[in-house]
Amino acid sequence: MDRGNYVSRVERVRQIMSQRGLDVVIITYWPNLFYITGIVFGGFGNPMPLLIPLEGDPTFVSPLGFYQMVRDNYPFLNAEKVSINETPWRKVKSILEEWGVASGKIGIESRHITSVQRDILRELLPKSEFEDCSDIVESIRMVKSEEELKCIRKACEITDEVYEVIMEDILKPGKTELEVSREIVCALIEKGGEERIFPLYTGASFYPQVRFGINTVYTSVRSTNKKCSQGDIILVDYGAVYGGYCADITRAAVVGSPTEKQKKIFEHVQSLLDKTLQIIKPGIKAAEVYNFVCKELKKEGMLKYFIGHRPGHGIGIESWERPYLSPNDFTTIKPNMTLAVEPGIYIWEEGGFGIRLEDNVLVTEKGVENLTKCPKELKVIL
Amino acid sequence: MDRGNYVSRVERVRQIMSQRGLDVVIITYWPNLFYITGIVFGGFGNPMPLLIPLEGDPTFVSPLGFYQMVRDNYPFLNAEKVSINETPWRKVKSILEEWGVASGKIGIESRHITSVQRDILRELLPKSEFEDCSDIVESIRMVKSEEELKCIRKACEITDEVYEVIMEDILKPGKTELEVSREIVCALIEKGGEERIFPLYTGASFYPQVRFGINTVYTSVRSTNKKCSQGDIILVDYGAVYGGYCADITRAAVVGSPTEKQKKIFEHVQSLLDKTLQIIKPGIKAAEVYNFVCKELKKEGMLKYFIGHRPGHGIGIESWERPYLSPNDFTTIKPNMTLAVEPGIYIWEEGGFGIRLEDNVLVTEKGVENLTKCPKELKVIL
Repeated sequence: MDRGNYVSRVERVRQIMSQRGLDVVIITYWPNLFYITGIVFGGFGNPMPLLIPLEGDPTFVSPLGFYQMVRDNYPFLNAEKVSINETPWRKVKSILEEWGVASGKIGIESRHITSVQRDILRELLPKSEFEDCSDIVESIRMVKSEEELKCIRKACEITDEVYEVIMEDILKPGKTELEVSREIVCALIEKGGEERIFPLYTGASFYPQVRFGINTVYTSVRSTNKKCSQGDIILVDYGAVYGGYCADITRAAVVGSPTEKQKKIFEHVQSLLDKTLQIIKPGIKAAEVYNFVCKELKKEGMLKYFIGHRPGHGIGIESWERPYLSPNDFTTIKPNMTLAVEPGIYIWEEGGFGIRLEDNVLVTEKGVENLTKCPKELKVIL
Repeated sequence: MDRGNYVSRVERVRQIMSQRGLDVVIITYWPNLFYITGIVFGGFGNPMPLLIPLEGDPTFVSPLGFYQMVRDNYPFLNAEKVSINETPWRKVKSILEEWGVASGKIGIESRHITSVQRDILRELLPKSEFEDCSDIVESIRMVKSEEELKCIRKACEITDEVYEVIMEDILKPGKTELEVSREIVCALIEKGGEERIFPLYTGASFYPQVRFGINTVYTSVRSTNKKCSQGDIILVDYGAVYGGYCADITRAAVVGSPTEKQKKIFEHVQSLLDKTLQIIKPGIKAAEVYNFVCKELKKEGMLKYFIGHRPGHGIGIESWERPYLSPNDFTTIKPNMTLAVEPGIYIWEEGGFGIRLEDNVLVTEKGVENLTKCPKELKVIL
């Protein structure tokens, strides 16, 4: 992060602030703090608020043990310090009073700030009017700069390289889902995966989700001690981080020869992903992509196996960020957005299985560029 | 987790509920959910509240993609499902109405629940009175059961084994702090480190903090690209997880022969840790331990180098949990509490460095048992 980037990102926040009549916004959510300032999450302690007024220099409120690092590495940033046992909110109050906005309209990130923190803030600033501003930085973050795209491309490259390691070396019958998840983390680190900003994670953009057999129908469960057995469908959902930016892909495999049903469902999903990527272009709304996936599944009589898992989302500082390809996200897709597109079919019945395929794409002027180059096949594991 | 454990933990929550006149508590913080039910954090999506009434069966509100796993693996748990795009709070409202407590006194974990979630809940339940109950499960968690202690002992053993790997194989002049952090994660996984419950992390109980040279004075900063150089003091602060329970130790090293000043400060800290461990016993208050450390540092003229970093905290499902050895924590230390004790001296001046040593201990009837067996020396790295 350099001063130029910082100043222009603050400026974009201010444009939205003035449209909404906000006197100041208090940024506390780490992915947003990183986006504006480049500062990385330390992993501990109280919130470290960045106060952005409509005019004049923003101020970062830092605990003592963090302050010197901020001074040394982010000299463009105006920072004030508080001691480790002190809440940052008293300092926030005095800064807002100094700026003359303590009885103004204040944006806070209510989707992330805890209920207790907000209560303290309200008690200290009884004359302020608070408004949720969680969406301000998150909406700006959707369209990526060239610099950000370089990081995402590199994260996708590392992810592709690790695909080979997973399929050739890691996946073996007899291993548990958890063992495979852990080995994927190490493989990502070995190939150059870095740290996710928040929640802090090493190498991987999130905890690799590995599922065998019936577990492939679960979409939000952690890997388990289930062992990889003959005939199992395998799903691996994982991604690397580079420069603070995330990739997120899913691939499928089968232990031994696939059954006709496994092959058929895989081909359905493969063709559904291709079709979905073809309709994504500037101007389409996120919800329209969701609806398209549902319509296609309905045609094939597969809609009952869709179970509401969203077929995609933005990727960037978070592996799961705006826009969401969900029925109630009406964001218009624009060039330089980066998406993870992941339709799936989940057969819940006895003896069932799930198949999902997920690619990372960059929205271009005319459509998408696929950033995920690793094979999209039902890999056979022996 | 078995039904017996679940029932007895719910019972202890209810004892505190009835003292406080609470009709129901809503548990949403994952370390607390894991403690009561054994369910592990999936890593995605909306809150999954566990509703505990004063009488009758508690109910877990699960998203669809998580529900079947709960049914299969936690059959003792009464669960209701909501679809993936649906907030759990409407279901919570209808359950509370069914139980006849929708206009009662409801405990919520305000220290963890977001401001937006609480607003939704308040809007749906306008007649309820809400009270912060974040401390209920967290206070019960302080004293560990035999089963929990087995996991903590094993986490400490893995941590000790990795100490040898760090000192013999990983730390080398020329490597960066980040490289060493990542290698520690892989070493922890290789030696049997498992997943932290929340925030989700693989192998390590938190992101290993590795610092070289002047960076050793920072206490809440992430590892950087700084390279390990001749004469540097090195701090490694890390721990393993086993069965969902965390270890957390710190050790020091020096590249090449230590200076007289480095040796002297190391010996101060070593002796301070020993003295601190000697005064910890049932009956002493957490704040008294903090005050003792300050008094000892003052005797040596070192208090100005203390910078407010707390000299210890509880360890368990979180690597940093109650009690905190801080000036405002008046918790009475009891047998079967597990603590990380970590006094340090941080010389902020030009050419300065910090040294901290951290052991994990179990409070016994008469004092403490040290669970950390790896050497406590200023290891020389060549």
